[in-house]
Amino acid sequence: MEKVTAIVLAAGQGKRMKSSVSKQYMLLKDKPVLYYSLKAFENSLVTDIIVVVGNDEISYVKEEIIKPYGFRKVTHVVEGGSERYLSVLNGLNKIKDSDYVLVHDGARPLIKTNTINTVISEVEEKKACIVGVASKDTVKISTHDGIIDSTPDRNQVYTIQTPQAFEYSILREAYDNLASYQGAMITDDAMIVECLNRYPIYLVQGEYTNIKITTPEDLIFAEAILREHQDFI
Amino acid sequence: MEKVTAIVLAAGQGKRMKSSVSKQYMLLKDKPVLYYSLKAFENSLVTDIIVVVGNDEISYVKEEIIKPYGFRKVTHVVEGGSERYLSVLNGLNKIKDSDYVLVHDGARPLIKTNTINTVISEVEEKKACIVGVASKDTVKISTHDGIIDSTPDRNQVYTIQTPQAFEYSILREAYDNLASYQGAMITDDAMIVECLNRYPIYLVQGEYTNIKITTPEDLIFAEAILREHQDFI
Repeated sequence: MEKVTAIVLAAGQGKRMKSSVSKQYMLLKDKPVLYYSLKAFENSLVTDIIVVVGNDEISYVKEEIIKPYGFRKVTHVVEGGSERYLSVLNGLNKIKDSDYVLVHDGARPLIKTNTINTVISEVEEKKACIVGVASKDTVKISTHDGIIDSTPDRNQVYTIQTPQAFEYSILREAYDNLASYQGAMITDDAMIVECLNRYPIYLVQGEYTNIKITTPEDLIFAEAILREHQDFI
Repeated sequence: MEKVTAIVLAAGQGKRMKSSVSKQYMLLKDKPVLYYSLKAFENSLVTDIIVVVGNDEISYVKEEIIKPYGFRKVTHVVEGGSERYLSVLNGLNKIKDSDYVLVHDGARPLIKTNTINTVISEVEEKKACIVGVASKDTVKISTHDGIIDSTPDRNQVYTIQTPQAFEYSILREAYDNLASYQGAMITDDAMIVECLNRYPIYLVQGEYTNIKITTPEDLIFAEAILREHQDFI
């Protein structure tokens, strides 16, 4: 049977939350933020889940989230690194064998199971794909001295979300070559694969509601979305 | 005395609001969305305000918003056009003489008077400037067939807001040359000036709270921001 592993990143510090509780453990309605994406993956075609958490958070996540909510697909809970891509690497290193890997931000609780399943069927066909939405805003590229350099055609500008999905061997290869592009500012997993410059990466249409919780207002926004949309968990 | 004119655009249809009431007239807390930005401009160093509204909305805006809230700087309420830039043009055509023009989306109620005043002092020095915030998201540029083409350096990617401010003569010149670049997809005023390709346009740091109301969730989000931040009107 095909193996599809999700790496869910919950190691962020949440400096913008003005709180000692990391954003992924704050309560959204009556459950921790992290609960929602784990639930969506648990209900999806993903076969196993690796959760990457902050220092000293392993037992908290196991005892307070994974056990009480009965997430059976979680095979590992590991500590993250100092950067996002190092956290992914720690998760990746736990995979003995898999066909596809989906990387997801644990701070995006409103990912839908449907979207996850679409990503899986796309990555089976295309080997590398990421969820994004057309930018609602006009985006401009500036020079380093704060002058507008260009306005990309809005039809071609995508705000990137997660999950980002890759054939396991491609993501593994990209990480094995990590040393060669340490200089690049890596803000998502696709960039690591882009650095390889060998595999086209396809966009999968996501939903605007799949927001990332980074500020206290985002949490209120997420609650509003949960109220408006009955199809969330 | 220097004249600084604000054109506030309130002619949007709000197709995404799933409502017969245009987004700029929906209630935010207990006042219409449009009230908030007019109040911020009224309290700023702007000397006069032109409001551009939808078909048949002139008397509503005059009677229900401008008169009851006592906005004294509003000199004209005019109907907009079928496109954003045509609405700006209708407003611009009402200006007999001015030194600087600020264009603002009426669907951005949370603009602060401080930001407006900063924009005014910047445009006096630099002739063309727009408010933007560094993108919190990774943005990617796609090809037309949905493959990722590039990931611009996040430090250089700005999400553009309003107000956008120009020396009056520059904006007038740009609009007088409109016929020559009708083919371009114009999503903001800076693009019209960019098409002239003669004046550098500077970024002014805005605030993430200066959101545009386009969906029902945005209205709830705006209310959350108003609750969290006591420094709004």
